[in-house]
Amino acid sequence: MRVAKVLSGPTEIWDSFFNMNEPANIFAAAETGNVVSKDDYDRQIVALRLELLNLQYDLRSSDFSVVVLITGDDHPGVVKVLRILHEWMDARYLQAHVMFSTDEAEYKERPRFKKYWRRLPPVGRIGLFLGAWPAATIQHALEEDWTHVQFDAALDEQRRFEEMLVDDGTLVLKFWLHLPKKVLKGRLAAAADDPDTHWDIAQYDWEFVQQYGAAVELLERLVRRTSTTTAAWHIIESTDSRYCNLSVARTIAQALKPRLSSPPEKPTRAPATDPLGGRSLLDQIDLQASVTDKHYEVELADLQARLNRLSHRTNEAGVGCVFVFEGVDAAGKGGAIRRLVAALPVQHVKVMPISAPNEVERAHHYLWRFWSRLPRSGETTIFDRSWYGRVLVERVEGFAEVEQWRRAYGEINDFEATILGSGMVLCKFWLQIDADEQARRFEERARTPYKKYKLTAEDLRNRAKWDAYEVAAHDMISNTSTSYAPWHLIAANDKRHARLEVLRIVVQHLDRGLELADDSKRTSKKKKKKKKK
Amino acid sequence: MRVAKVLSGPTEIWDSFFNMNEPANIFAAAETGNVVSKDDYDRQIVALRLELLNLQYDLRSSDFSVVVLITGDDHPGVVKVLRILHEWMDARYLQAHVMFSTDEAEYKERPRFKKYWRRLPPVGRIGLFLGAWPAATIQHALEEDWTHVQFDAALDEQRRFEEMLVDDGTLVLKFWLHLPKKVLKGRLAAAADDPDTHWDIAQYDWEFVQQYGAAVELLERLVRRTSTTTAAWHIIESTDSRYCNLSVARTIAQALKPRLSSPPEKPTRAPATDPLGGRSLLDQIDLQASVTDKHYEVELADLQARLNRLSHRTNEAGVGCVFVFEGVDAAGKGGAIRRLVAALPVQHVKVMPISAPNEVERAHHYLWRFWSRLPRSGETTIFDRSWYGRVLVERVEGFAEVEQWRRAYGEINDFEATILGSGMVLCKFWLQIDADEQARRFEERARTPYKKYKLTAEDLRNRAKWDAYEVAAHDMISNTSTSYAPWHLIAANDKRHARLEVLRIVVQHLDRGLELADDSKRTSKKKKKKKKK
Repeated sequence: MRVAKVLSGPTEIWDSFFNMNEPANIFAAAETGNVVSKDDYDRQIVALRLELLNLQYDLRSSDFSVVVLITGDDHPGVVKVLRILHEWMDARYLQAHVMFSTDEAEYKERPRFKKYWRRLPPVGRIGLFLGAWPAATIQHALEEDWTHVQFDAALDEQRRFEEMLVDDGTLVLKFWLHLPKKVLKGRLAAAADDPDTHWDIAQYDWEFVQQYGAAVELLERLVRRTSTTTAAWHIIESTDSRYCNLSVARTIAQALKPRLSSPPEKPTRAPATDPLGGRSLLDQIDLQASVTDKHYEVELADLQARLNRLSHRTNEAGVGCVFVFEGVDAAGKGGAIRRLVAALPVQHVKVMPISAPNEVERAHHYLWRFWSRLPRSGETTIFDRSWYGRVLVERVEGFAEVEQWRRAYGEINDFEATILGSGMVLCKFWLQIDADEQARRFEERARTPYKKYKLTAEDLRNRAKWDAYEVAAHDMISNTSTSYAPWHLIAANDKRHARLEVLRIVVQHLDRGLELADDSKRTSKKKKKKKKK
Repeated sequence: MRVAKVLSGPTEIWDSFFNMNEPANIFAAAETGNVVSKDDYDRQIVALRLELLNLQYDLRSSDFSVVVLITGDDHPGVVKVLRILHEWMDARYLQAHVMFSTDEAEYKERPRFKKYWRRLPPVGRIGLFLGAWPAATIQHALEEDWTHVQFDAALDEQRRFEEMLVDDGTLVLKFWLHLPKKVLKGRLAAAADDPDTHWDIAQYDWEFVQQYGAAVELLERLVRRTSTTTAAWHIIESTDSRYCNLSVARTIAQALKPRLSSPPEKPTRAPATDPLGGRSLLDQIDLQASVTDKHYEVELADLQARLNRLSHRTNEAGVGCVFVFEGVDAAGKGGAIRRLVAALPVQHVKVMPISAPNEVERAHHYLWRFWSRLPRSGETTIFDRSWYGRVLVERVEGFAEVEQWRRAYGEINDFEATILGSGMVLCKFWLQIDADEQARRFEERARTPYKKYKLTAEDLRNRAKWDAYEVAAHDMISNTSTSYAPWHLIAANDKRHARLEVLRIVVQHLDRGLELADDSKRTSKKKKKKKKK
């Protein structure tokens, strides 16, 4: 009944969709009764197994990972395929994640894709995701009474997630196992009576059959909307398990083989732009801004006190906070972060210094290490340098190819939209000083007794590339200063001015974050009340 | 009142302890009213902060990690010290873990030390643990009505955990912050009335004050029993926060400085033994054991069916299973694991191939990567090679020093006791073939179309060291075949014989694991009933 609610309502998009002159059910093609005989099967699998094992072996020394997503309306069938893949391939190099019904903690986890990011395989490995994000979308849509707008937004998020993986070189293979409702019902009944198979059937399988008629429309919409050229769904009839097993295994082999022998064509999605000329955004920062001693002491104490209370409230309200600090070397990020930490409840705060990725991190998407470091509900994470390394140091030093850092702007915008969409607060600061001030600070550092401020060769190298970094920063700001996650450009020639600015902006963001949290609380209460009526 | 129960009962050990002619309270020395004046404080911290920052900087390029444990009866005081350390040191290289009251999921996590292992800092970093294992021990003792035997066992576990870290080169510093009861109560009352500090006080702080009289005896026992020469408690009076801050920070600096300038003396705990002579345990395996074709087929099917049902039951009962496979090269570990996986519910099983540790793993204790891979409740993990690498390949190839692999026997025995103590099943298999059979299999591999079986240079190198590996295996078995986690030596010249043996033994272990789970369920039910009365 809940399903009916989700789909009801005279919404234009929805209606126009169902009025399209097409067969009512996208799965009809997978109800044609495909069968493979036992002899044929036995004959085929000998060669197929050898091929799969050898491909898997070659994959181990390749530079990409494989994500195999298996889901559909036939859950017990999915588990059967999983078993076959474990038998035919080398189970030691398969990383399987069965995620049909997630436990309470994971169900609540925000942002929703964190649990998948964490489990993505490193290069050279195959990650098998069973159920996973499509199953979760259906589950959430049904349990939380999503509107079709919410449902479509979730599908869009899936598509972008998969696209990001593909862009990073990951081979994404998606299988949808379909059983006609009648067959599914019969299967469940038969399996439930068998002492050896009744384990394979969960409560949600029965619930699913009951909601089948309505849910199938959601499923169909999901499959249609998330089938892209680079990550298409393979809809497979699972009535005959030999046919199903062979189809899945052969598709994997057929996709893996060409990919191993030649790298994929480079995506050309990011259009080439001319080198930038004219005034830089950074020139617009009034670097002479400063504060008096007295003003600083008074305002610092005041802001820190306000921040302390606000931060305790965000903690109580379960609002996670992400603060990002980027800027020119010696611009005073460390000092600003110290004044910020001093105002926050230290037991809920983590400061993350970001340097070059380690061996494990390098074997994953560049955003992977940031996903796993997002704060838990109510906690705060301060990034001293961040994912923007992709479009700054990696661009300037040539660690990322042009296509990679150009594509990163959009990926980062999506990433930050997800962070904000999950109810977190996000503040981004760019601390700017001029070249003279930097020179002065470097000289000062050379005289300080603090070892950590001793100059490194890298500092001086970066200084030589001042102009290149300035162009990169300008491009970064103009491409990622979105309405929802704007950059705050901080004049930092006067350190104390910069510190106050940072605190002032954080106060504003926390205020706003708490307001939004209150709003969404009220809305969900209203929704609950409505439901009761 | 619950505390009283824990301590009551005429138990000899307990009584004799309290009858010792000593001051009743170990914390009396920390109630003498130590105070530092503001002038003195301000003067001292200038030099101390510089020293701390420089030490922290040097630590980053050292080869050891630092674990600072701060706990005690003054919880708000602990948070204050944490704040000061963040102010005085570089917060970016402190990893703080506030663990006074753990959330539900972590509270239930088994084995209990998994959550601490996961958070241990890598070399070059300082991990700050607030509350953590001592706080958890007190919490569990009170909430679960522990007997003093259980309490002492938990203290023993703490001691061994810390000892293992120290042996690995970690600098362990433990601070116990003490406030006299009266002062504590006054503080809480005052803080609760202050809008700026009331956040720092949790429900459990009040509960603690109520139970103080009884709990203090537990606290005292904990401090006494876990104060060792290599990881002693520093009991610090926290009535005056300047005194407390200075004491903690100075102790850290004083401990870190000499440790950075010279490595610690090597522990000589493991006595040197003469090279082994005489018959090897491996000689006692009857390598000629074999099975007929018919027997194999029938029994394999039977065992796999039984295993399947048992394994579903352990999953339902929440019993985690750990299977360890070690053995000579080409002994057939892979084949045995495949037959085992085929019998298990694949959605609950992970196969972990263990090879050389990666960069991140190398920066931690060698057991760290295994702790994080232990199965969750009801899940199964199969290790294809394991933590025994420390006493096999690392010993033979010289990757571990003599003291390190000698010490590992005891560490591994403790590790496995913890695994079993948390209700999991653990089976260890050593698969043995003779040198001729190995040569035959290597030749066969050279002809197979499966790439993964192609010989590597390493295989042949290992073969040249056949004798050295045999001695290492003998020593390993004789030192780690404990009554609770015995090695199963499997004759594997006949692969099929070996596979059946493995399945048969797994069936026995699962049977036993389920029995134990039932027993402990009954016991806890009885306990609950008793409580109600």
